[in-house]
Parts: sequence; structure tokens; C-alpha cells
Amino acid sequence: MSRKSFLGKSIVSIKDLTREDLDIIFEEADKMEQIIKSNKKPLDGKILAALFMEPSTRTRLSFEAAMHHLGGSVITVSDPKSSSAVKGESLSDTIRTVENYCDIIAIRHPLEGSARLAAEFSRVPILNGGSGAEEHPTQALLDLYTLLKELKTVEGKSIAMVGDLKYGRTIHSLAYILSKYNAVKLYFVSPPSLRIKAEIKNDLKEAGIEFHEVESLSEVIPLVDAIYMTRIQKERFPQEAEYEKVKDAYVLTKELLTFAKGPIPVLHPLPRVNEISYDVDDTKHAVYFKQMYNGVLVRMALLNLILGGEVK
Amino acid sequence: MSRKSFLGKSIVSIKDLTREDLDIIFEEADKMEQIIKSNKKPLDGKILAALFMEPSTRTRLSFEAAMHHLGGSVITVSDPKSSSAVKGESLSDTIRTVENYCDIIAIRHPLEGSARLAAEFSRVPILNGGSGAEEHPTQALLDLYTLLKELKTVEGKSIAMVGDLKYGRTIHSLAYILSKYNAVKLYFVSPPSLRIKAEIKNDLKEAGIEFHEVESLSEVIPLVDAIYMTRIQKERFPQEAEYEKVKDAYVLTKELLTFAKGPIPVLHPLPRVNEISYDVDDTKHAVYFKQMYNGVLVRMALLNLILGGEVK
Amino acid sequence: MSRKSFLGKSIVSIKDLTREDLDIIFEEADKMEQIIKSNKKPLDGKILAALFMEPSTRTRLSFEAAMHHLGGSVITVSDPKSSSAVKGESLSDTIRTVENYCDIIAIRHPLEGSARLAAEFSRVPILNGGSGAEEHPTQALLDLYTLLKELKTVEGKSIAMVGDLKYGRTIHSLAYILSKYNAVKLYFVSPPSLRIKAEIKNDLKEAGIEFHEVESLSEVIPLVDAIYMTRIQKERFPQEAEYEKVKDAYVLTKELLTFAKGPIPVLHPLPRVNEISYDVDDTKHAVYFKQMYNGVLVRMALLNLILGGEVK
Repeated sequence: MSRKSFLGKSIVSIKDLTREDLDIIFEEADKMEQIIKSNKKPLDGKILAALFMEPSTRTRLSFEAAMHHLGGSVITVSDPKSSSAVKGESLSDTIRTVENYCDIIAIRHPLEGSARLAAEFSRVPILNGGSGAEEHPTQALLDLYTLLKELKTVEGKSIAMVGDLKYGRTIHSLAYILSKYNAVKLYFVSPPSLRIKAEIKNDLKEAGIEFHEVESLSEVIPLVDAIYMTRIQKERFPQEAEYEKVKDAYVLTKELLTFAKGPIPVLHPLPRVNEISYDVDDTKHAVYFKQMYNGVLVRMALLNLILGGEVK
Repeated sequence: MSRKSFLGKSIVSIKDLTREDLDIIFEEADKMEQIIKSNKKPLDGKILAALFMEPSTRTRLSFEAAMHHLGGSVITVSDPKSSSAVKGESLSDTIRTVENYCDIIAIRHPLEGSARLAAEFSRVPILNGGSGAEEHPTQALLDLYTLLKELKTVEGKSIAMVGDLKYGRTIHSLAYILSKYNAVKLYFVSPPSLRIKAEIKNDLKEAGIEFHEVESLSEVIPLVDAIYMTRIQKERFPQEAEYEKVKDAYVLTKELLTFAKGPIPVLHPLPRVNEISYDVDDTKHAVYFKQMYNGVLVRMALLNLILGGEVK
Repeated sequence: MSRKSFLGKSIVSIKDLTREDLDIIFEEADKMEQIIKSNKKPLDGKILAALFMEPSTRTRLSFEAAMHHLGGSVITVSDPKSSSAVKGESLSDTIRTVENYCDIIAIRHPLEGSARLAAEFSRVPILNGGSGAEEHPTQALLDLYTLLKELKTVEGKSIAMVGDLKYGRTIHSLAYILSKYNAVKLYFVSPPSLRIKAEIKNDLKEAGIEFHEVESLSEVIPLVDAIYMTRIQKERFPQEAEYEKVKDAYVLTKELLTFAKGPIPVLHPLPRVNEISYDVDDTKHAVYFKQMYNGVLVRMALLNLILGGEVK
């Protein structure tokens, strides 16, 4: 296994990546800041098609910035209503058309399995930028990369995952990817109705990961080395009364963080609504914006590895 | 006539192009693959404005990819609702504004004659990317270029055009452009209600083109050297019953193609809905995706000729 | 004060700029045409994020063209509905995310004060591309730059501002910026109900600017050295009858311009609807399209000064 094994590869699911793959990706990501500063153009002449069939400004701009930093060009579909799909075209036809316009495709699509299908039909590599409710591998990679940068290692660390653990796709992917590291301990913090799904728990058990399901955020704070927050969406609750009961219990404040071991990092996939109070932003805990920058580095790493860009 | 005659020229209608012009464009297109591979930038520093007042992802991305391959930059309007037109601005004012931001404009507009109007007002060249129901010259050029590449020559060849011959604008343009070549024989295959218009037939007669109007797709297949398929849209039929009667008669299948002379090319402007069955995709007949790639080459050729890019 | 004082600076309001700042910006703008011709790339490797939360094709394309001319790259949000704001994200979070993807942000936002807020939160410089009804500093700069180019100097000149003086934000900014020059005389030409606001008049009095409020466009034409036209919008009138009464009185025609001192320049922020008749377009008076080109030069100047691009 080496950098070269990524040449021409699609990244559809975090489950396709081995621990060795992760090491190569993060090693590459570490070199990307130097690429930005030196203004080298390892992907000069290459074209990324950002095919966003579902709105996602954040992920789209991050991919586009990554490609520009590498010296490549970008063509974009960001408005699903102006796409050929509205004329009744199948996804496979769209892909077999767009592959003629570019060297790599980053796709976001509302349907489960769409990125996998795209990768099967495409002659150019596919980067899954979020397909349906399940897979969003570059998000999981940037989450883990941020934890690794902040904690030096995740081995032997305790990490709290907070909020909507039932529907939040970032939670599943991050838990899965963390299971590739030794002695990670997870605390799943949520209201009873939004607990992590049984199948994920089974996967974690098989991987030998220690985890605990708890309801109280404040009780967990002193125990962990990092906190990963997510949104609790009102729409997920059958009755508004139930939502009103729990919503404030999962808001992270500067005050709550005084009970932490130290300046432990707080992550969030963003956008946040109110689950991290604004007074946390100016503390050392806040790494959720730095996380966005790490996202550019990780996506640069993937683009560069897959398209065979030189480093130095 | 030479490459230089294209400098600063607008391409509004296929009717503005002589046979000699076509030869120059296709000769240039043949060189474009080398430009892509060598990563030369003949249009470095030039800006294309892609002004799409009507959705067309395919054509827009193709123009944008073409410009990027030539080393140029692109600015894009892809959402008609966010354009100045909604503030009541005339097309001529829009053009006289946008020409200050770019070196060339590719425009798509829902109204007939809009590209012609744009070319009259503009100081920079205009490329018609589809205006109203009539003109879409770069589509006709890429269709013909694909036929030429697949058949070596179109002279003396028999070509079937299938589907909605009444409203399909690609059909008219392609028939017209083929009339510039010797001894082309056309088979127009459609239900009676979607036959090619009388005026087109008159034009073809004047140009001395032999053509036949037929209803049966299966009868024509053994006779032709290439098939150009188009969509039959339900909306075109006054009564749904009439549509249901014909729709399956104009679906090209792998099985039907076993009656062909040989591995004859099948073209389609895309998007297809179901008029070419998916089992054709893996046969040698399927050139409709390659056609998309040829579209990039043809658009590169036009941009490079008009903006005076060097080749080698 | 020097070019260097612009490094990393945000441009939120025309009120933040001194007369000396203006001189530096316009001196830089004068050099930009040479940058375009020579195809130098002073901002190679830099990324502009064009964050348009409100439609504005003209301003967005102008910023994007400016960045491309300087050799930089662009990432764009042009459809407010596909932005994270719809997921309930605060503007400050959006800015603190997007700043990780770029070197500078040009923002347009429907809310008053939004660009100021953005500049407070952002680590990268903010260029206000129009916030709410009040501030649109690059428009004022390009208006003034055009007047300076056409008239050599604005000192001692008489300038008519015509149309909707109450709501037109370009009017306020231009009047304010002109007050930094000596002996400018302003004629405010409007129907009584759309007169310039009292606070602006107070500001101008304090700045020692001579101004006159008049109702008749034709009476003013012989007196002035330049005319700045704006749209009168039907919606601004409580009763349609009132609108019908005045609308034709503020239409500038070729005939009316025969009463001017000479080939005096006519400016307009565009889009126009009918307030300048089309027969003016071919006269020497028409500088409103040239104004758009000057807008590219002024925006290039700002980008280059703020991001520290070299000139020659």
C-alpha cells in the first residue's frame, strides 16, 4: 500500500478505507498547507466537476477551494432544478455525460446509494460528497483528522458524541472510522428517543470498541478528551412537547465546559443552530471552524492522491 | 478562407457556416485532444461568460470544460431567476453589460432570434448555445463531427433520423448541415403526426438531398450507416392514446440492432428517456456518450479559432 | 498613507474611505488595464469567495471577472436558497466557515449592516457588494471613477442626479463621495415625493457642498457637466396615478440632450428600464456601459491593493 494505490480510486464510503489508507490520506493532508503557501499547482490542467444535486454550500465550496489550491479548474452544478435530472435523465446517464467534461466528480445526491451507483458507471473517479442519509465520507475524514491534530492521537481517548445520534449521519461514520483505532472509548449522549441505532452498536461491539450510552451531557463532560456536538432537529420528534423537554439539555455552554478536564476540543459538523452557545466561540475549546479548514486540507489530499499530483 | 477568418466571429446559426468553415472547425477540433494532453494554455487570460438564461447543464458544462482545457477562465449565469432580466432589463442591455466582463459570450436563451440579436449588439463574439426552438449550432457541429469520426466520411452514406422530427431542433440543424455534403441519403423515421416540416423538406430538395419518410424503425435499420435517435415527448401528442400507440415503436434495442449492416453508430443528443434501451450502451453501436466528448472538442475548436489561440 | 495601508483591509462603507484612499484606489485602477493586456497574474493562487445572498448578476460577474483578470480563482454562492442560511445558520457562522475557503470575501446580503457584521467576524477581508438599501461602496467608487475619467476632474463641476433620490442607494453614496472634492455643485432632480432625504442634505451642508433641488429635468440639462440617471420604480408610489403623472418627465432622450453644454457624460448604475431612451446609446453622452468596464477596473484595484498584488 502506498500513495499510488489511490490513483484513479473512487471514495464512496468510509467503509472502503483501511487504517493504512487513513494514514496515507492524513499524511498527504499534512503536506497540503505547504502546497497552498508555495502556490504549487500539482493539478494544473485537471478539472473537477462539483455535481451537487442537493444544496450544500459548505461541502461544495470546500471541494472547489481544494481544487483551486491545487491549481485545477472547477465546473459546477449547484442548482438541482437546472439539471438534466429534471428532464427525466437517469443518474447513470448524467454521470456518463459529465465524465466527458472532467477528470474527477464530487457528487452530492439525495438518494441512498447514488454515489455507489455513480462510481460503478463512471470512467473518472467519484468522490462522495454526501449521498442520502448514510454516507458522507469526506466529513468523517475531516472530523477524524481534526481529532488527530488536536489530540495528537485518538488511541486511549474518550470521546463524547452528543445530540441526534439516531439520524445524524456524521455520528455513524465517525464512530465507524474511530473503531479502526485502539482503545477509543465513546460516550453516546442523547435523549432516549434519539439513541444510536442497534446495528451501529453491533458493529462497534464487533470492532471491540468500548462505548456507553448516557442521557446527561453535564455528567459526561468531566470524563472526556473531546466532544462532538450535533444538531437536534425539532422535526425528529413526534410531539413538540417532547422536543421542548430535551432541547436545552443538549446545549453546550462555556459554563458547562469549566467542568472539563482541560481545554478539550469541541467539534461540530456545522451548521449549528443553538446547540453550542456563542460564548464557547472565543474559548480554546472551539475547533469547529478550524475543522472547516481541515476539511479543505483533507479534500486536497484526496484530489491530489487520486489524480496523481506531485508533492514537492 | 483560413483559420484567421474566424477571428472575432460570432456563431449564431449553422446556416452562417460554409462547407469550408466546417472543414476548418473539424480540423481544429482534431487538434484539441493534443491541447488537453499537453496542458497548453492557448487562451490563458481570456474569459468566457456562460450566460444561460434557460437551464442546460449539459451544454453549459461542455462550454466551461472547453474553456478550462484551453487555459481560460469562466464566469457563469446559470439561474435565470437571479439575472438582471427579472428586473426588466432588455437583452441588448444585458449583452452590452456582460461584454465588459469577458472576451466571448456563450448564450442560451428561450426566445427565438435572441442569439442573433445578442450578436448584433455585442462587441465580443457570441456563441449561440441554443436560442428558442430553432438554433443550436454547436449541437449540430458536434453531431456531424461525431458522424465524420465514426464513418470516416458522410458522403454516400445513409443516415436514419428517428423520433420527433417535427419539433426536434437538432434534427433540422443536422439535416441542414448534412446537405452540404455529397450524396447523403436521409431516412426520416417518425409517427405521421411528428413528420419533418414541409419547409425543411423543401430546403433539402433544393440542396439535392435524397430523403425518404418512413414510419417503421425496424424496416430502416438494415438500410443505414448510422442512426440518430431523438426523444418523443408525450406533451407533443394531443391525445395520450395516440402517444401510447407509437411510443414503443421508436425504441431502439440491442435486438433490433442485430438487423443492422454492422456496428453502425447510434447517436443521440441526450438526455434520453427510454428511446434507446440500456442494453445498447455496452455495444459498439453506442456513441452517444462519446458524442458528448466530441462536443467538448468542437467547442474548444470554436473558442480557439474565434479568440485566436495558437495551436502548437 | 500608501498602497500598503490597504493590505488586509475590509471595504464596508464609502464613509470609511478618505480622499487620500480614493486617490490611491483610482491610481491603482488606472494601472489595471495594463494588467489585463499584459496577462500578468498578481493574485495567482488567491481565492475570492463571491457570496451573493441576494441576486445581483452584474455586481457578481464584475467581481469575478476582476479576480480572473488578476490571475486568481473564484468560488461562488449565487443562489440564496441553496445556502446554509436556509438551515438557520447565523451570518457570523457562515462567514467564519467561508473564510476557511478563501483569501477574500465579496458579500451581498439583503440586510442592513450585514457587511459590517461580516467584517467584524471575518479573519479575511470583506468587500461589501451591497448590503440592504444603504451601502454599496464599489458602485459609488466606479461611478466616481467614471466621472473622473470623463471630466478629468470633478472639482468645480455641476452634476445632475435624476430620478428616485429618496430610495436610490447609489445616489446617496455618490453624493457623499463627491463631497470630498472641492467646489462640486449638485442638482437633485426628482418628483416632490422622491426627494433626497433630509439627513443626506444635512451631511452635504456640513461638507460645504452647494446643491439645488429641482423638479424639471429639461431646465437642468443646459447647466450641468454630467448627468447621473436612476430608475423611478412604480412600487415607490402610493398611487399609480401619481406615478403615471411623473414617469415621462424623467426620461432622458437624445433630443433633450441637444440642450446640453456639449457631449456631457450620462451615467446610470443599470439596469435601466426606460429612463434613458435607446436613441441616446449611440451618442457620445452614453457612458453607462463604459461605466461597467470601469467597475471591473475599480474592483481589480481593490482586490489587488487588499491582497497585496504586485503591479509591474
